[in-house]
Amino acid sequence: MAVNAKPLGCLNGVRVLDLSQFEAGPTCTEALAWLGAEVVKVENPKLGDPGRAAVFGSPEKDSFYFLIFNANKKSITIDLKAPEGKKLLRELVAKADVMVENFAPGAIERLGFGYDEISKINPGIIYAQVKGFGTGSPYEKNLAFDMIAQACGGVMSISGERDGRPVKPGPTLGDTGTGMLLAISVLGALFEKQRTGKGQRLQVAMQDAMLHYIRLAFATQARIGGPIKRAGAQTISGGNPPCGIYPCKGGGPNNYVYIFTSRANPEHWKRLLQLIGRPDLIDDARYATPQARIEREAEVDAMISEWTMKHTKHEAMELVGGAGIPAGAVLDTQELADDPTFEQRGIMQTIEHPKSGSFKMPAWPVRHNGQPPEVKPSPLLGEHTDDVLKAWLSMSERDVAALKSGGVV
Amino acid sequence: MAVNAKPLGCLNGVRVLDLSQFEAGPTCTEALAWLGAEVVKVENPKLGDPGRAAVFGSPEKDSFYFLIFNANKKSITIDLKAPEGKKLLRELVAKADVMVENFAPGAIERLGFGYDEISKINPGIIYAQVKGFGTGSPYEKNLAFDMIAQACGGVMSISGERDGRPVKPGPTLGDTGTGMLLAISVLGALFEKQRTGKGQRLQVAMQDAMLHYIRLAFATQARIGGPIKRAGAQTISGGNPPCGIYPCKGGGPNNYVYIFTSRANPEHWKRLLQLIGRPDLIDDARYATPQARIEREAEVDAMISEWTMKHTKHEAMELVGGAGIPAGAVLDTQELADDPTFEQRGIMQTIEHPKSGSFKMPAWPVRHNGQPPEVKPSPLLGEHTDDVLKAWLSMSERDVAALKSGGVV
Repeated sequence: MAVNAKPLGCLNGVRVLDLSQFEAGPTCTEALAWLGAEVVKVENPKLGDPGRAAVFGSPEKDSFYFLIFNANKKSITIDLKAPEGKKLLRELVAKADVMVENFAPGAIERLGFGYDEISKINPGIIYAQVKGFGTGSPYEKNLAFDMIAQACGGVMSISGERDGRPVKPGPTLGDTGTGMLLAISVLGALFEKQRTGKGQRLQVAMQDAMLHYIRLAFATQARIGGPIKRAGAQTISGGNPPCGIYPCKGGGPNNYVYIFTSRANPEHWKRLLQLIGRPDLIDDARYATPQARIEREAEVDAMISEWTMKHTKHEAMELVGGAGIPAGAVLDTQELADDPTFEQRGIMQTIEHPKSGSFKMPAWPVRHNGQPPEVKPSPLLGEHTDDVLKAWLSMSERDVAALKSGGVV
Repeated sequence: MAVNAKPLGCLNGVRVLDLSQFEAGPTCTEALAWLGAEVVKVENPKLGDPGRAAVFGSPEKDSFYFLIFNANKKSITIDLKAPEGKKLLRELVAKADVMVENFAPGAIERLGFGYDEISKINPGIIYAQVKGFGTGSPYEKNLAFDMIAQACGGVMSISGERDGRPVKPGPTLGDTGTGMLLAISVLGALFEKQRTGKGQRLQVAMQDAMLHYIRLAFATQARIGGPIKRAGAQTISGGNPPCGIYPCKGGGPNNYVYIFTSRANPEHWKRLLQLIGRPDLIDDARYATPQARIEREAEVDAMISEWTMKHTKHEAMELVGGAGIPAGAVLDTQELADDPTFEQRGIMQTIEHPKSGSFKMPAWPVRHNGQPPEVKPSPLLGEHTDDVLKAWLSMSERDVAALKSGGVV
């Protein structure tokens, strides 16, 4: 099957120096790469981005974790602790439009590449940083990972069963969620730079970024007081039944269908009663209003469950959704990977990696003129050292060879 | 206290026609507004964006839901079903750089403003759409809300307790998460347009967008097989203990601290043993390796909990984090709203809304040259009708009055 995708040229000519690692920074720069920027990962010559080995990769074979967050990038190795390596990075900085880093607090300054140094070399550069906690936060020096951000950013407090403990949602919102917000600011800054030549410094903290994704909770808190509680499969803003997951035939861990009847559209409830064979209840005062159904939640849920249990989740989604009621099967990651329609639409794409072989991965999900950008395999460590040094710095073969023999690259 | 924020000019001069409603579309255009674009909401003259009344707003007073997702925008009312209203929109389209919509499938085409029509009027426009399911998906005609996207996009299947049913995470990832990805593509397209004058069509489906946020699950699935299971407060990629939340003094629903010891850094575990007064176990083979600790998970967790229960979550975060081990208190939404450091840093800002009064809300969390963009109150329905018609279309007072008396605006 031909890939339903194409390379994008939105950011053609934009040069990004990517000193980021793991996920929060790399997802930001990967989005830029998918839009057509030339993203060059700067990695240490020994092991590279620790994401290559993280989550069970090895020095011989990059982890899938690395593959998935570093598609469409180039890789150059530089020993940033060696004086000659530092000099080389400064030369690259002079040619770059954007530089991104997400080292532990203080590390980039200790390397000599803090904002003050970099902006002196290239005042037009967009210098973008991710940290766990913001400058001025009592925790600004603390380490953070995805889960720490989700704990401290309110996400976990509103995720889980009503009477249970907090759970950490599966999505890596602390990492990818932060990376996406930074990408938006980088792109805004690039637009400005294209007109004015001006650079700027961008900083985002993972804890702060979490607040952006739970703003419904803050809106709800302003209305009903806080703290906002966990709501299981319901919405934290207070849905009226039916709103939640209902068990389907099969009984497996994900054999559920989500059914949502909106308060804003009374037709949803009436259509649902028609579908489940209870049109007699349409005008029944015991259920007619959202408030009445809240008072009889257990009864309403039992009525819906009785129907859903006679159907598979796919049938239920088809029938309920088809009747004009918002509904969705709880799909698991294997079902999503196996569903051919994602690949047909270019939302999933298969790369051929020289060491890891075939790997089907989600692509950038926004289609530009009908197609998502084409996914290209993540780079091997140092794969583009020669190319980048020659293209960005006009180095000769001999110059590059000298750096290599000195262990600088 | 002076607001630690400033207006941003990244997108100065960019005109956005915002026909979107509720959350997925509005969060996209709000991000553009925060970057400095002129975002004009086009609303029906009667009730406007249904988000104004949604989640317990009223025709007299906009919901907090609306306030939070529509800051820094303008509002113009147009009856898009009236011929004169349609003509007016076409005139505005001719002056716009971006148009965004997230109506139910087929609705924008029925109004006569599908991509084919709009791009004929303005070939340079960036036409951006959010739907629940992608074109070519078996569900492309279905309705979707945040929770449906989270169900069908794999998010719920990997969120919840190990032995429990799926839960819907509190963050509105289906809405805001999708809006952020679309904003990135719009900004990429704007960068290209600034150079080439070319417009493009952008489409994102909420289901597809979810895959982007659970890519760690697909990477893990490639390694260990699928489907990926729920992991409670742990990471779905398989953390080694200690990794999760531990109960703290007080016993409330969010009195927990997240502690994470990375496989990649054996020092975390050693530092933790020092801190909790068990340096004797540092070289103990029963716990020395991640694998050994996995085999004794309950024992390890009990050891850590015994210590955490002697401390409040804030103390525990301070002590564990301060000792160089990633740690974070599970903060609830009230604690976050009450924490003055967010306001001091401009991450939370208080608006003065003419009808709703003072409202503290999270701002755009990325700082540009040290400050986040300044939050301005969401517009009243039709607040900027006169201004926009005069500025965009050079209409006179009299022209506008005629439209008003005809009920068109």
